[in-house]
Amino acid sequence: MASTNGISDDTTTLAQQARLASLALQSASKKHKSAALKRIHDLLAERKDAVLEANKRDLENAKKEVDAGRLSSSLYKRLDLSGGNGDKYAGLLQGVLDVEQLPDPTGQVTLATRLDNDLELYRVSCPVGVLLIIFEARPEVVVQISCLAIKSGNAVILKGGKEAAHSNQELFKILQDALASLPEELSIPPTAVQLVSTRDEIATLLKLDPYIDLVIPRGSKQLVQYVQESTRIPVLGHADGLCSVYVDEDADEEKAVSVVVDSKVNYPAACNATETLLIHFHALPRVFPAIARGLISKGVQLRLDERSQATLTAAGVESGQLTTAREEDFQTEFLDLIIVVKTVDSLQEAIAHINKFGSHHTDAIVTENEANAEEFMSKVDAAGVYWNASTRFADGFRYGFGAEIGVSTNKTHARGPVGLEGLVIYKYRLYGKGHTAGSYGEGKKQYLHEPIPLETVKDRFIK
Amino acid sequence: MASTNGISDDTTTLAQQARLASLALQSASKKHKSAALKRIHDLLAERKDAVLEANKRDLENAKKEVDAGRLSSSLYKRLDLSGGNGDKYAGLLQGVLDVEQLPDPTGQVTLATRLDNDLELYRVSCPVGVLLIIFEARPEVVVQISCLAIKSGNAVILKGGKEAAHSNQELFKILQDALASLPEELSIPPTAVQLVSTRDEIATLLKLDPYIDLVIPRGSKQLVQYVQESTRIPVLGHADGLCSVYVDEDADEEKAVSVVVDSKVNYPAACNATETLLIHFHALPRVFPAIARGLISKGVQLRLDERSQATLTAAGVESGQLTTAREEDFQTEFLDLIIVVKTVDSLQEAIAHINKFGSHHTDAIVTENEANAEEFMSKVDAAGVYWNASTRFADGFRYGFGAEIGVSTNKTHARGPVGLEGLVIYKYRLYGKGHTAGSYGEGKKQYLHEPIPLETVKDRFIK
Repeated sequence: MASTNGISDDTTTLAQQARLASLALQSASKKHKSAALKRIHDLLAERKDAVLEANKRDLENAKKEVDAGRLSSSLYKRLDLSGGNGDKYAGLLQGVLDVEQLPDPTGQVTLATRLDNDLELYRVSCPVGVLLIIFEARPEVVVQISCLAIKSGNAVILKGGKEAAHSNQELFKILQDALASLPEELSIPPTAVQLVSTRDEIATLLKLDPYIDLVIPRGSKQLVQYVQESTRIPVLGHADGLCSVYVDEDADEEKAVSVVVDSKVNYPAACNATETLLIHFHALPRVFPAIARGLISKGVQLRLDERSQATLTAAGVESGQLTTAREEDFQTEFLDLIIVVKTVDSLQEAIAHINKFGSHHTDAIVTENEANAEEFMSKVDAAGVYWNASTRFADGFRYGFGAEIGVSTNKTHARGPVGLEGLVIYKYRLYGKGHTAGSYGEGKKQYLHEPIPLETVKDRFIK
Repeated sequence: MASTNGISDDTTTLAQQARLASLALQSASKKHKSAALKRIHDLLAERKDAVLEANKRDLENAKKEVDAGRLSSSLYKRLDLSGGNGDKYAGLLQGVLDVEQLPDPTGQVTLATRLDNDLELYRVSCPVGVLLIIFEARPEVVVQISCLAIKSGNAVILKGGKEAAHSNQELFKILQDALASLPEELSIPPTAVQLVSTRDEIATLLKLDPYIDLVIPRGSKQLVQYVQESTRIPVLGHADGLCSVYVDEDADEEKAVSVVVDSKVNYPAACNATETLLIHFHALPRVFPAIARGLISKGVQLRLDERSQATLTAAGVESGQLTTAREEDFQTEFLDLIIVVKTVDSLQEAIAHINKFGSHHTDAIVTENEANAEEFMSKVDAAGVYWNASTRFADGFRYGFGAEIGVSTNKTHARGPVGLEGLVIYKYRLYGKGHTAGSYGEGKKQYLHEPIPLETVKDRFIK
C-alpha cells in the first residue's frame, strides 16, 4: 500500500518501489498488459457503486467550496463521475478497453544494422521507466493515466487534486486490487501504480531523479511552472498555449471566417484556442469585417490595433465588444472569449511576431498562396503549423493517436499532442558471437554497416 | 562577432542572436547547408598555417603546465592539431566533407494521416533550435560540432577549454568568415555559430532557457554533473560510464575471454569500457581462470570477491595484480586497467546488480543460452544491452551513424550513442481547406484517420 502521509523517507521508499516495479514491467508481454487492463475494467464495473459513493463525498465537500466562492462551478462539474446520466462512468470503462486495443508501443524496431557478419544491432522501443503525473480535479485521470502507463510498460506515481481525494483513493484501490488479483503467470506488481496526495510528497518526488524518469504536470500554468522550476527530471507539458492565426493578404474570406471563429470560440478555455489574430494590411478591408462580425456574433471581445479599428469603423461594424489592444494583450493567454488583433505589413512580420510572442504550441495561416503557406510553416517554430485549418485540431484524439498523455511545447523527446509513443524510449540490442572492438580498424577487419530491412525483423521483439 | 568578455548582458544578446539565426536556419535547404560546409572545408584548408600557428601558442602554454605538473600529457596530446605528421589536420578536413555527405536529418516524414478529406497531417523532422556545447581540450570539436549543427539546421554556442583558447578562436574565425562569405542566395547567418570562453558566460547561458534548447556537455563527470545541476534546459549526455559484463553459467570460454578482455583493455579511459565483471558461480572454475589470465597478461588489476579469489587460488593463478574487492569498487568508474569481480548465484542477481550499480550505459552478457540472453537484454535497463559482444562497440561510428554527438544515458529524447537524429525534433504540419474542429463530433462529421503511405510522401518536405 502506498504511503500517503507525506514523510519524506516513505516517499523515497514509494519511488524506489515504483522503480523496481518498472524494471519488472520492462519484460511484461502484451498478454500481461492486456490481462491487467481487462481486470481493471472488470473491477471498475463491479465496484461502480463504491466509486460513485466516494465521489459523492468529494462532491459534497466541493459544493460547500463552490457556495463559499472558493471553487469554480466548472471545476465542480469536472469532479463529478456520475455526470451525463451515467455516461461519464461508461466512458471511463470504455476508455480502459480502448487503451487495451491500442497498438503496443514497445518492442518496435526503428533501426537494424548488420555491423559485421554475425554482429547485428537493433534499436528497439522500450518503456521510459517511472512516470510522475500531477493532475487536478478530474478523478478519471487516475484510471486513464494508469492504463496508458501499464500499456506502455511504465510504472506511475499519481498525485491528484485534494478536491477529488476520496474518488482518487477509491479508484486507486481498485487498480491495486486488480493488479494484485492477476494470475501468477501474468503478474504485474501492484506497486507499478502509486498514489500520493500531498504537496510535500511532490516536493520530495521532484528531487528523486534516480527513481523517476519523466514528470507530466497536467493542470494550470502555475502548476506546470512550479514543476519545471523544481526538478531536474525531464518535464513533458506546456505552461502556455498562446496560439495565433495569421490571415494572409491572399486569404479566402470564407475560410478566414471559419478558421478564426472556430479557433477562438470552439472551446476558449483550451490550450489550443487562438488568442491572437494577425492580419495582413491588404486583407484588412476585404476580409476583416466579416471575421469581426463572425466573432462578435459569438460573443467575442475584440481588442483592436489602430488599423483594424479604423477598418471596422469604415465598414460600419459597431459593437460594445470592440476595445483597444494594449501591448500586454499580445502576451496574454486569455482562455476566454477575447481575441487581440494586430495588423502586419508582411508575412515575415507575422512570422517574427509569432516566434517572439507565441508559446510554440500551434499557429495557423489562412491563405490561398502555397508559397506563403510553406514559408509560414517552415519558419514558424511551433509544435503545430497549420494551413487553412483551426488551431483547435491540436489534440491527440483528433490526430488519431487514440490517447493523449498531454500536449508538449518541449523541443526534445516529444512535441505537440503526445500519444503513447511519448512514454517510450529505445535501447540498442547488439547480438554478437564473441566480437571484440579491437579487431576492427586500419589493417584489420572493416565494419559492414549494412541495413537490415525493417519489415524482416519488425516482429522479432514483440512478446 | 561573439562577445567573449563574460558580461551577462552581452551573453544574453549572443544567445538571442543564436535564436534568431536558428529561426533563419529552420528553412535552410540541403543546398544551403552543403554550400556552407564546403566553404568551411575550403577555408580551413586555406588557413591551415594560421590554425597551426595559434595551436602552437596553446601548446607552448600547455607545455609549461605539463612541466609544472598541472596538466596531464594525454591532455597535451589531445590539444595538438599538428599530430600524426599532419594526419590530424587532414582528418579534420575530411571530417567536414564526411558530414556534408551524411543524409539530411530534417524534412523526414515519420507520420502521415488523412484526418478527413482534404485535411492532411504530417509529422516532419526539423532542427531542435539552439544548442549549447561545452567541451574540454580538443579544439577540433569546434569544427566537428559546428558542422553537425549546420547540417541539422541548428544554431550552436560553443564553449571550449581555456587550454585551447587560441586554437578555438582561430577555428571560430574561419567558421564565421566562411559563413559570411557565402553567396546571398545561399546565406546562413554567421551568428549561427557562437563562441564563448569563460565559466561566467556558461553560468549565464545555462539560465537562458528561452533561447537555448539543448545543452551537450562533453567532458569530465564533474563538468556533466555541474551542467545537470545548473540548468532547466534539457541536457544530453552521461556523467558516468559504469559498464558491466556478466559471464553466465552457460558462457563459452573463448567468447568470455575475448569479450571481457576487449571490454576492459581496448581503451580503458573510455566511457564504454567495462568496470565490473559479474560471473555465475557455476562458470567460475570452468571459465574464470582463463579470463583472469587474459586480463593479467594485459596488465589489468583484478579486485576479487571471496569466491573468485578462491577459484584462482585453486587453479594456481597467481599474480601481484590480484587484490581484494571493496564494496565501493562496485560503484567506481575506474577508467583504468582495473576491474572488480563479483560472483553471483543467478542471472537474476546479475541483472539486479547491474540495474542497481550500473550507469545504464552499456552492459553485456556472455552465454550460449538464448533464453538467458533475452532475459538479460529485456530486464537490464541500459542504453545498450549486448549478447556476446564487447561493451566497446557502444559508439556512433561503430553503430554506423557516421557521426557522434555524444553518448546519452537519458531516458528521454535520445539514448545511447547519438548521431545527427539527436539534434532534430519534429513539428506537425496540418493542411486543410478551411476546416473547423466544431464540425466534427456526435451527429456531425467523423474523422477518417486514414494512414497516408510514407513512401508516397517521403520527399515532400525535402528542400
